[in-house]
Amino acid sequence: MPDRDLQYLADLAAQLRVDSVRAADEAGSGHPTSSMSAADLMAVLFARHLRYDFAEPGDPANDHLIFSKGHASPLLYALYKAAGAISDEELLSFRRRGSRLEGHPTPRLPWVDVATGSLGQGLPVGVGVAMAGRLERMPYRVWVLCGDSELAEGSVWEAAEHAGTEGLDNLTAIVDVNRLGQRGPTRHGWDTGAYARRFAAFGWHTIEVDGHDPAQIDYALEDACGTRRRPTVILAKTRKGEGAQEVANREGAHGKPLKDAARAIEELGGVRDVRVQVRAPEANGSPFRFEDGKLELPAYDVGDTVATRTAYGQALEALGAARGDVVALDGEVADSTKAEAFAKAFPERFFEMFIAEQQLVAAAVGLQVRGWKPYAATFAAFLTRAYDFIRMAAVSRASVKLVGSHAGVAIGEDGPSQMGLEDLAMLRAVHGSTVLYPCDANQTATLTAEMADLEGVSYLRTTRGDTPVIYPPGERFPVGGSRVLRHSPGDRATIVAAGVTVHEALAAADELRASGVPVGVIDLYSVKPVDTAALAEAATTTGNLITVEDHRIEGGLGDAVMDAVSELGPRVVKLAVTDLPGSATPQEQLADARIDRNAISEAVKRLL
Amino acid sequence: MPDRDLQYLADLAAQLRVDSVRAADEAGSGHPTSSMSAADLMAVLFARHLRYDFAEPGDPANDHLIFSKGHASPLLYALYKAAGAISDEELLSFRRRGSRLEGHPTPRLPWVDVATGSLGQGLPVGVGVAMAGRLERMPYRVWVLCGDSELAEGSVWEAAEHAGTEGLDNLTAIVDVNRLGQRGPTRHGWDTGAYARRFAAFGWHTIEVDGHDPAQIDYALEDACGTRRRPTVILAKTRKGEGAQEVANREGAHGKPLKDAARAIEELGGVRDVRVQVRAPEANGSPFRFEDGKLELPAYDVGDTVATRTAYGQALEALGAARGDVVALDGEVADSTKAEAFAKAFPERFFEMFIAEQQLVAAAVGLQVRGWKPYAATFAAFLTRAYDFIRMAAVSRASVKLVGSHAGVAIGEDGPSQMGLEDLAMLRAVHGSTVLYPCDANQTATLTAEMADLEGVSYLRTTRGDTPVIYPPGERFPVGGSRVLRHSPGDRATIVAAGVTVHEALAAADELRASGVPVGVIDLYSVKPVDTAALAEAATTTGNLITVEDHRIEGGLGDAVMDAVSELGPRVVKLAVTDLPGSATPQEQLADARIDRNAISEAVKRLL
Repeated sequence: MPDRDLQYLADLAAQLRVDSVRAADEAGSGHPTSSMSAADLMAVLFARHLRYDFAEPGDPANDHLIFSKGHASPLLYALYKAAGAISDEELLSFRRRGSRLEGHPTPRLPWVDVATGSLGQGLPVGVGVAMAGRLERMPYRVWVLCGDSELAEGSVWEAAEHAGTEGLDNLTAIVDVNRLGQRGPTRHGWDTGAYARRFAAFGWHTIEVDGHDPAQIDYALEDACGTRRRPTVILAKTRKGEGAQEVANREGAHGKPLKDAARAIEELGGVRDVRVQVRAPEANGSPFRFEDGKLELPAYDVGDTVATRTAYGQALEALGAARGDVVALDGEVADSTKAEAFAKAFPERFFEMFIAEQQLVAAAVGLQVRGWKPYAATFAAFLTRAYDFIRMAAVSRASVKLVGSHAGVAIGEDGPSQMGLEDLAMLRAVHGSTVLYPCDANQTATLTAEMADLEGVSYLRTTRGDTPVIYPPGERFPVGGSRVLRHSPGDRATIVAAGVTVHEALAAADELRASGVPVGVIDLYSVKPVDTAALAEAATTTGNLITVEDHRIEGGLGDAVMDAVSELGPRVVKLAVTDLPGSATPQEQLADARIDRNAISEAVKRLL
Repeated sequence: MPDRDLQYLADLAAQLRVDSVRAADEAGSGHPTSSMSAADLMAVLFARHLRYDFAEPGDPANDHLIFSKGHASPLLYALYKAAGAISDEELLSFRRRGSRLEGHPTPRLPWVDVATGSLGQGLPVGVGVAMAGRLERMPYRVWVLCGDSELAEGSVWEAAEHAGTEGLDNLTAIVDVNRLGQRGPTRHGWDTGAYARRFAAFGWHTIEVDGHDPAQIDYALEDACGTRRRPTVILAKTRKGEGAQEVANREGAHGKPLKDAARAIEELGGVRDVRVQVRAPEANGSPFRFEDGKLELPAYDVGDTVATRTAYGQALEALGAARGDVVALDGEVADSTKAEAFAKAFPERFFEMFIAEQQLVAAAVGLQVRGWKPYAATFAAFLTRAYDFIRMAAVSRASVKLVGSHAGVAIGEDGPSQMGLEDLAMLRAVHGSTVLYPCDANQTATLTAEMADLEGVSYLRTTRGDTPVIYPPGERFPVGGSRVLRHSPGDRATIVAAGVTVHEALAAADELRASGVPVGVIDLYSVKPVDTAALAEAATTTGNLITVEDHRIEGGLGDAVMDAVSELGPRVVKLAVTDLPGSATPQEQLADARIDRNAISEAVKRLL
């Protein structure tokens, strides 16, 4: 590289450091030292390898840059300034109320694909974006800036496994090995070889460089672009706080502004106005999409018995035929979740993620970055493995469709490790989420199709065993709705149920009615948002609600109902799982958990 | 090995297969083929290497055997039968209601340390048990039987990193590489080298063997016992369903009984009565324990301002001095959670788990297996990373103390990725959990100490910023209790708060009272179990409750209050976080989320 290029890169990097120091200083908080270590890496990337049109963040040929070490946000914003995307004034709004420049990057900025800040998530999501690039045959590259500390997260190795085995050569991880974590030295310090051995074992091309030597960095980035059939990791030895004596390579300087920012800025050569011209993306046509067709959802006859998980699989297959933008992922249990129907029909659009639920959800988040509609399924119980990713998907404003099968004690003999009993609580607490829990096959099919265009995190809960089909094909089940299944003017109470307990509630109601106690039944298939109007009407007309759910008593359907009617003051009795189940048949489990028809009848009688 | 030993091992393994087939056949469900692949491995382990007294499962010198592939429970139970611990009759109670022999192993059986069945958890928990062995200077070994499918879980690599770097040579992973997962072939099939390269890169001693050759297995187990300063992984190439033509090495035979069990049993040589004499544990004294001392909790002056996370750290240090059984773990944020106070005082009892929250919780579960009282801390937000481990800890009847700092929007500028806003919902939904959320330093200190002897999963939520000390030192705060902070006979409503919102509630109440609207305030520091009596009294006397929490509106304090008072029918208004926050100061965040003093006052006025 000519000397003048090297000088330019040094100037650019110095400005990035200065601006990181300034932004944090102005904010009074933030992570300047974590930004300074990676400044040379990003200067070379932006000046010579990234292909991105900041004026057109939606250009499908744009590269993708994910700051997995999201706390280095001052560096990212300094880069945006150097690229002319934001002003110096906006840079200095860092961390202020109302500013787009949050403490950790979020998609409030149009150039940010996903929110980061929970470490170990950027690389798995980057894998998803790289999968999308391969699917749509676009030549973009995915660059992920990682910290060294976050390589301790298992999710990084789920990503390493998937990318390495799938040979995602459009993916490059750049690891800023600055040897210092938050509270002190990392496990491996500057032993970049330790990381290189690990990534190499997972099938990656590895390059170890001095992360403050622009020529070495440039060579490594070039090498990454030229490497075929393997992802590349660049392990860059750096110094945290590089460039300012006060903090350079010192412990105790994590996550705070410099004490003497002015001196550091002077040391770094003062405030500059260096601009970076990022290369334009390769213009080569539009991304590949699969053809759309006609939606013909499966239809089930009333009176038949069909598992809702089966209906999910068949509806997903029908949806795949109708919509070329639908893709499906599964955590090595597609024969159980029934996603296998889609996998067989559309193998190109099905992703086997094996038993790696964090990567399963992260890949879905990555795919939706490029406009795909991802359905990701595993057992409801095992989605708990990915809760941090689900939570962060909401911060990312990501639209992903999650499906949890084998919900509740109704799975029977397999026992509590396999029972999704916390999933409603977990998903309800996610910002902007939709939580659906159908009770029959036709309802499941309709809701599966409806999820495709829902914004945010949506969740469908399915049941292992067969349940009666009670709705004719073709009926509508809007999100936020409910269905009144039993109702008479003399109803003395209303049972509110969803999924498997709807059938128990119907049996109980019919038995109670026969014995002279008329009660209503509501199918609350939309647990969030909840049908407040219907519940309010039931609450005011009967004054007595019995909620019954195959879920723990905390945070699920019962709490959703109480929340909806609390200001009306009805009496509410919640039936839910309170003990720790063992093995037993599905019907024994429902009885033991006191959520079967007998328990419901008794609860109604006790209440009245 | 002499021929007669080989013959004996073959007979024992055949019986284990026969009994696995029989148990699943009798149950009508279960995983016989996953049991059959590992039968030779376990036969050799039990006959020649395991040291265990089945009559004294509590013997501190006993080895520990964890079936990480918990679905191979028929094999485990067949081993118990061969060892004389259970009868053939009990074996055939497999998966029946009331039987201790659940679909996946749980500690209802005295020889089972922890529940398994959510894959990828046995090895991380085994790491914790191995850490305990080193801490207490006991010569026991930890054996973990893993499946090959579960090596896709990131948690396995968190365990590999910790054990490899710490050199836990008392830990051996035995991987049953039967090449078939649930729905089909695994990623690496029989390529044991692929796994060996990965484990070796993480610092493990690796051995690849034919998993059906007792001599090779014996050699490998011997080698594991003799290996110093490194954990060992034995990668055993096996055939799923080995020994029965109907299923051997065939796809589609996962997780179900054999079609023709009688024929398979005949093929395997019929029902036998082979016994295995497991070697006695090495008798060498009692486990090392640190000395107990006197508990002198830190005391804070009323009117001072102290962060509850600081009080946690100082109380934990005091507790460490008082109790030799208390240990602490942290996820590389001990300077933030303030666990560093303990770390400095008791370095031998402090475990830096780096940024690997699944291993953080798993290690705590492993340590409590041996009677230690583990406190595991990270940011509340990042405990979501370990939700599956927390859920399974409850199934394991494990007593672990989790601490989440930096809860809520009150953290301020760092933004939503760092805000624990789902933690109360997540932890409340865990079976048998205790959820504590103190508002001042003295209360935090008392509750920290109280957690030590709580059974099950307990959780302490702490706040980043300083809050006023409102309780004098030395007061009692029993689990399940609450404190009435403002109360007068004329109260027109009661505000229920916890943690940071207690101070907002007090300010609002004082302002309201001054303006002629007397309201009560309850500090609901015990979110689960909840003080139903106190809430009921408030509900009946004022009829109006306002709950206010720095948490999402679903599943937290508000829902806990509603649940407690629902049958009394008060009006309940919930104030909680409903939008997606950005960056802002702590006070701006509380105001924007409508959970500050002004929002509370307004809500009270609207309600009345």
